[in-house]
Amino acid sequence: MHFESDNSGPAHPSVLEALAQANRGYAGSYGGDDLTGRVRDRIREIFEAPEAAVYLVATGTAANALGLATICEPYQTVLCHPIAHIEEDECGAPEFFTGGAKLTHVPGENGKIAGRALAQAIAGCRQGFVHAVQRGPLSISQATETGTVYALGELYALTGQARDAGMKVHMDGARFANALASLGCTPAEMSWKAGVDVLSFGGTKNGLLAAEAVVIFDPGLAWEFELRRKRAGHLFSKYRVLSAQFDAYLAGDLWLKLAADANTCAGALAEGLAQVDGTRLVYPPDANMVFFEAHADRHRALRAAGARYHLWPAGAALEGAGDAPVAARLVCGWSTGAAEVDGFLTALRAA
Amino acid sequence: MHFESDNSGPAHPSVLEALAQANRGYAGSYGGDDLTGRVRDRIREIFEAPEAAVYLVATGTAANALGLATICEPYQTVLCHPIAHIEEDECGAPEFFTGGAKLTHVPGENGKIAGRALAQAIAGCRQGFVHAVQRGPLSISQATETGTVYALGELYALTGQARDAGMKVHMDGARFANALASLGCTPAEMSWKAGVDVLSFGGTKNGLLAAEAVVIFDPGLAWEFELRRKRAGHLFSKYRVLSAQFDAYLAGDLWLKLAADANTCAGALAEGLAQVDGTRLVYPPDANMVFFEAHADRHRALRAAGARYHLWPAGAALEGAGDAPVAARLVCGWSTGAAEVDGFLTALRAA
Amino acid sequence: MHFESDNSGPAHPSVLEALAQANRGYAGSYGGDDLTGRVRDRIREIFEAPEAAVYLVATGTAANALGLATICEPYQTVLCHPIAHIEEDECGAPEFFTGGAKLTHVPGENGKIAGRALAQAIAGCRQGFVHAVQRGPLSISQATETGTVYALGELYALTGQARDAGMKVHMDGARFANALASLGCTPAEMSWKAGVDVLSFGGTKNGLLAAEAVVIFDPGLAWEFELRRKRAGHLFSKYRVLSAQFDAYLAGDLWLKLAADANTCAGALAEGLAQVDGTRLVYPPDANMVFFEAHADRHRALRAAGARYHLWPAGAALEGAGDAPVAARLVCGWSTGAAEVDGFLTALRAA
Amino acid sequence: MHFESDNSGPAHPSVLEALAQANRGYAGSYGGDDLTGRVRDRIREIFEAPEAAVYLVATGTAANALGLATICEPYQTVLCHPIAHIEEDECGAPEFFTGGAKLTHVPGENGKIAGRALAQAIAGCRQGFVHAVQRGPLSISQATETGTVYALGELYALTGQARDAGMKVHMDGARFANALASLGCTPAEMSWKAGVDVLSFGGTKNGLLAAEAVVIFDPGLAWEFELRRKRAGHLFSKYRVLSAQFDAYLAGDLWLKLAADANTCAGALAEGLAQVDGTRLVYPPDANMVFFEAHADRHRALRAAGARYHLWPAGAALEGAGDAPVAARLVCGWSTGAAEVDGFLTALRAA
Repeated sequence: MHFESDNSGPAHPSVLEALAQANRGYAGSYGGDDLTGRVRDRIREIFEAPEAAVYLVATGTAANALGLATICEPYQTVLCHPIAHIEEDECGAPEFFTGGAKLTHVPGENGKIAGRALAQAIAGCRQGFVHAVQRGPLSISQATETGTVYALGELYALTGQARDAGMKVHMDGARFANALASLGCTPAEMSWKAGVDVLSFGGTKNGLLAAEAVVIFDPGLAWEFELRRKRAGHLFSKYRVLSAQFDAYLAGDLWLKLAADANTCAGALAEGLAQVDGTRLVYPPDANMVFFEAHADRHRALRAAGARYHLWPAGAALEGAGDAPVAARLVCGWSTGAAEVDGFLTALRAA
Repeated sequence: MHFESDNSGPAHPSVLEALAQANRGYAGSYGGDDLTGRVRDRIREIFEAPEAAVYLVATGTAANALGLATICEPYQTVLCHPIAHIEEDECGAPEFFTGGAKLTHVPGENGKIAGRALAQAIAGCRQGFVHAVQRGPLSISQATETGTVYALGELYALTGQARDAGMKVHMDGARFANALASLGCTPAEMSWKAGVDVLSFGGTKNGLLAAEAVVIFDPGLAWEFELRRKRAGHLFSKYRVLSAQFDAYLAGDLWLKLAADANTCAGALAEGLAQVDGTRLVYPPDANMVFFEAHADRHRALRAAGARYHLWPAGAALEGAGDAPVAARLVCGWSTGAAEVDGFLTALRAA
Repeated sequence: MHFESDNSGPAHPSVLEALAQANRGYAGSYGGDDLTGRVRDRIREIFEAPEAAVYLVATGTAANALGLATICEPYQTVLCHPIAHIEEDECGAPEFFTGGAKLTHVPGENGKIAGRALAQAIAGCRQGFVHAVQRGPLSISQATETGTVYALGELYALTGQARDAGMKVHMDGARFANALASLGCTPAEMSWKAGVDVLSFGGTKNGLLAAEAVVIFDPGLAWEFELRRKRAGHLFSKYRVLSAQFDAYLAGDLWLKLAADANTCAGALAEGLAQVDGTRLVYPPDANMVFFEAHADRHRALRAAGARYHLWPAGAALEGAGDAPVAARLVCGWSTGAAEVDGFLTALRAA
Repeated sequence: MHFESDNSGPAHPSVLEALAQANRGYAGSYGGDDLTGRVRDRIREIFEAPEAAVYLVATGTAANALGLATICEPYQTVLCHPIAHIEEDECGAPEFFTGGAKLTHVPGENGKIAGRALAQAIAGCRQGFVHAVQRGPLSISQATETGTVYALGELYALTGQARDAGMKVHMDGARFANALASLGCTPAEMSWKAGVDVLSFGGTKNGLLAAEAVVIFDPGLAWEFELRRKRAGHLFSKYRVLSAQFDAYLAGDLWLKLAADANTCAGALAEGLAQVDGTRLVYPPDANMVFFEAHADRHRALRAAGARYHLWPAGAALEGAGDAPVAARLVCGWSTGAAEVDGFLTALRAA
C-alpha cells in the first residue's frame, strides 16, 4: 500500500523497452538523433503547436527553473501560490536560475491562486518604481500541489489577468497529464490556448524514469533556453535516453491512460474515505492525490497495517499528537492497483 | 566506423538490465533507497575512502560545476588548462554555479598543465590584493581532453603545488576509468592519495546511459553539495535510475574492463596510423582517443568510406582546406570493435 | 515643510567642511589613508569592539546587501519583517548579492518582528530537508520602517531565539542613531551585546552626504566582505570621501545630537497631532518618523498649505479617496526645525 | 612628487564648492532633483546625443559592471584586452553583475586590442554551438591601462568589426577626458559616432571626489540599467551629491582643462625621461601616464628623493632586483604641477 509519492513507484515497462530499443548502435549526441526529432515533432503535434520549441530534461525542478529563467529577469518577481513546488520544494532553484529574482505569494483556497489575490498581487507590484522588483511571470501549477485542478474557466481568467498586466505565464505541469485526464480537454486548451507561454510537461511522476519536457510556445526564446540549459548541466549527451522515454510515453496515448488510471484510483480512495466516519477530505480530489484528515490513532493503525503515506503538511508528526485529527496525503501513481486501494480502505474501516 | 565521441555509442547491455531490475516495485525517492546505499558504499570501498560523500548526477557538466561550486567562492578563480572541458565546453557552467568565479588558464603541452605554468599562475594570483580574484581550486582533467594521461608523478607534483598554495583540487574524471586503465594504479592513488578533494567520476562516456558520480573526500562539504545539487535541479526523485547504472558499472569491475577495451582499440588505431606515411599523431595516445594529422584529401576519402569523426580543434573544416594537413580526433568507446579499427586503417591506407 | 524623507534634506555643514579639509593633498587610496584608519578606530571605540572590522560604503542598500551576503549562503533564507527595507525597497539586492537566497517574512505589529512569529518561522524552516532553503540570518531593522524602536528586551529576546537556532543576526541600522537616541543605551548594548553580528550603521539619513558604515563584529568575516565589496563596485578609490563624512559625524557626538534633534521634532509632531480631532497616530512614534491617519480632505489642505510628505503605504493616493481616512508618513531629519513642526500643526488644525 | 595614481590626489576645489552649493535645502531624492536633470541634459548636449540615458554612480567598477550587465547575457563573453581594468582590477565584478559571463582575452601591443586579434577572437567564438559561451560585447578602454590612446581610425576599425559580428560595444572611459584631450576630437566622435553603445565616462580620476557617468546611447536599455543599478546598491538617495560633482566638472569645460593639464605634465615627464641615458619609455605616452624602465638602483634613488610611484606590472618589486632594469608607472593628475615634474626629472638625472 504505497501512497507516498508518484515518484517512488516504478516506470512503466514499455519505457524500459523503448530505452533498450533506443540504445542500439550509434546516434547523434546532444539531441541530434532521429528519435529526438520524432519526439519533438510528436509533442508539437499533440499540442497543435507546430512552431513550439521542445526540450527534454531529467527533473521537474530543472524544467521549472530553466523555463522561468527564460521568461523572468533577475529584477523581477514570479507570482505563484504560497505552496507552489517552485516556492516550497526546490531549495531556491528559481532564484538560482534567474540570477536572484523573487517569488511573490498569491494565495487562494485548495492550492489554487484566487483571482482576487492575483489582482491584488498584480496591483501590488510597483511597476516603474525602481526600488521594487518588477512584475515577472505568473506561474500556475496544474494539477496543484493539493491535488486540485483549475477548471479551464479558472485558468483562462488567471492568464487573462496576467496578459492584461503584460506578464508571461509559466505552467508547472509536473502532473499535467493528471489534470488533463481530469478535465478531459485537449493539451492545447490547457496550455497555449489558455495563455501559457512556457510549460513544464511532466513525465517522471506519471510512469517515466526521469524525463520532463519543456514546451516553449514562443520559438524566439528557444536559443536562450538552450544556452541556459547547457550551462546548468541539463543537456544530456546521450539525449536519446530522454527521448526514448517520451517516445514510449506518447505512443498510443500511454501518458493519458496512465494518468487516468491514477486518477481513478484516487477517486475510489476519496469515495471510500467519504463513507468512513471520523475522516474528511481536505481538498477536492480532482486528480491523483487525496488529502484527508483522520484521528492520529487511525493513522497509527493504518501504518501498522502497512499503509505508506506522508502526513500533511510536510513536518507534521504523529508523535505527540495524541488522538487529535491529523491530515495526510495519499498519492496514486499509474502502478497503484485497485487491490491497494481496497486494502487501504479496509484497513481504514478496521482502524 | 563511429569515432565521433564516446557519448554517441550505446550503453552497455548490463546497464539496461540493471535498470530494468531496479525498476521493480516501490523504492525510497531522492536517494533514500537501498540500492543507492549499496552503490555509495561500493564506491567508498573502491576508493578506499570510507568517509567520502558520494553523489550521482546525470551529466558531467553537472558533476564538474557542482563540485567546483562546493570548493570555490565567487571571488576566486579556478586554475585549469586552457582547453579544459570546464573552460571550453560547458557554456560557462562553472561561472554560473559558483556565482561568477573566474577561470585562469594554466597551459602546458599535450593538454596537460605544466608544473612551471602552474607555479607562474599560482604566483600570478595576487593574494591579499582586493582588486584581484583570489586563488580558488586547481582543476585537473584525467584523462585530458587530448587523450593524454598524467603519470602519477606528474599528478602528485601538481597537487603538491596546489596544496602548498592552500588550494583545493578538483579532478574532472569524465574519462577517469580510461586514465586508470592506462596507468594501472588504484582509484585511491589517482584521487585522494594524489591530493584530489573533489572528483567527477565519469560513467556516461564509458558505457552508462547518463550517470556520473561526484566523490567528495572531505565529508564536511557534503551538505552544502546536496543543497547546491537540489537547487540546480540535479537531484533525481527516482534516484535508483542513476544508482542502477552505477551498480552495473561497478559489478565485476565492468567499468575497468570497458575502459581497457576502449583504450586497446585506441592503441591499435594509433599503432596503425603511425605506419601510414603522411599521417602523424598529434598527442600521445594514452587513453581512448587518438589525435592525428592527415592531408585534407585523405580525410575526404575516409569520410567517403564511411568513417565518422570530428576534425580538431572544434571549428576546423575541410572546406577550403585544399590538401593541407588537417588534424582530427578519433574516440573509441567500450563498443568500438576491432573490425571498426581495422576498417578505418584499411580505408586510411587506401585513401 | 519638508517631511518626505530623511534623505531629501541637506548634509550637515560640518560634513562638508570635513570633506574640504580631507581633500587637501595626496592620500592613500582604497582606505589606505590615515583619516580612514582613525575613523575605523573611532568606530571601534564607540562600539567598544576593538576587534571589529569596519567598512564604509555609500548607500544603505550596499551596506545591507554586502553584510547579508557575508553571512548568508545562496541556499539559505533571511528571516525579516515583511516590510523590511531589504524586502520592500532594495529591488532584490539581497537576492542579487547572496547569489539567490530567499527572504522569509516574519510579521509583527508596528513594523517589529514578533517573538511568536519568529519562533514559528524558525520552526518552519525545514532544516536538514534538502528540498527547502535552510535557515540563514535574522535581519532586524532598528529603528524600523514604521518609526518604531525595539526595546532592548525585545531585541535580546529575538536575537536569543536566533542564536538558539544557530542563526547569525544582521541589523539594518539605517536609522541606528535615531533608535539609540530613543533608547538612551550604548551602541554596544544595541549591537554586539544584543547579539548582532553585522551592523549597517547608517549615516546618510542622519546628516551625511552618502556614507554608511558596516561593522562586522567577527573579524574572521572581514576579508570575504572586502572581496565582495570590491567586486560589487563599492570600494571607493578616494576613500577619504567617505571617511571624512564619518569623521565629522562622530566628532563631538554630532551623530547623536542630530538624531536626537530629529526625534524631538517627531515627538513634537506626534504630540500636536494627538490633540487634533479626526487624526490618529498609526504607529508609536519612537524615533524620527510619525505615521498618522487623517481624512483625505485634510491631506489636501495640508498639501495646499505647502506640507510635503508621502502617503502610506507606498502607492496610496488621494485621488479617488473622497474624504476617507488616509494614512501618511512624516519624516523629520536633523535639519527639520521647530518652525516647520509648528507650521505643519497650524496648517493641520486649520485644515 | 606623487605619481602613484590619479585617484590619490585631491578633487578640484570647484567640485567641493559645487557640492556645498548643492547641499542647500531640500531636493528630490534618487535623481529627482533639478540639478540632476540639468547635468543629464548637459551631458547629452556635450555628447550630441539628445536621446541618451545618463546615469551617475560613484565608482568606475560600478559604471563598467553595470554597463556591461545591461548589454551582456550570462551565457556570453566580453571581449577585452588581457590587461583591461575589467579583467585585472575589479575582482570579478563583470562576472558578478552579468550573472556569470566570461571575459575573453584579445591581446595587442601597448595595451590596445589589435584588429587581427579581435578578428581571431570573433571567429573563435563558436556562435550557435551550445557548448560554448556566445559572443557578447566588445569592451575597449580609452585611454588604455598603459596610457595609450586609440586613434579614431583604430577605434572605428575595432567597433566596425564588432558591429559586423553583431556585437555591442562598451567603452571603459575612466580616463575618457585624457584620451579626448589627446586626440582633440569631440566626445561624440570618440563614443557613439565611433560605435560605442555604453560608455563609462570617468570623473573620479580627473578631479572629482567619486563620480562617474554611464552614458547609454540606446535609451531602450535605460530602465533595465536603472533596476540593475538599484539592486546593486548604486542608486544614491542624495543623488545631488553626484550631480553637483559633474556640474562643476562640465562647467566651462573644466573636465577638458584638467585632463589637458595632466596630459601636459605626462608629456613633459616623458620628454625629460627620453633624454636620460639608461631609461626608456615602455609605452607611447599618449595621455596622462608614463611607463618607463630604469635600473633598480635608480628607482631606489628616486624613492629616496621622495618620488612616489608604482612599479609595473603590479607585483613587481625592487627587493631582490639587484640593479636590473625595472619598469614603473608615473601617473599625472590634474593637480600634478610643473614643479613636481621638474623635481622628478632632476632627481632622476641625479640618480
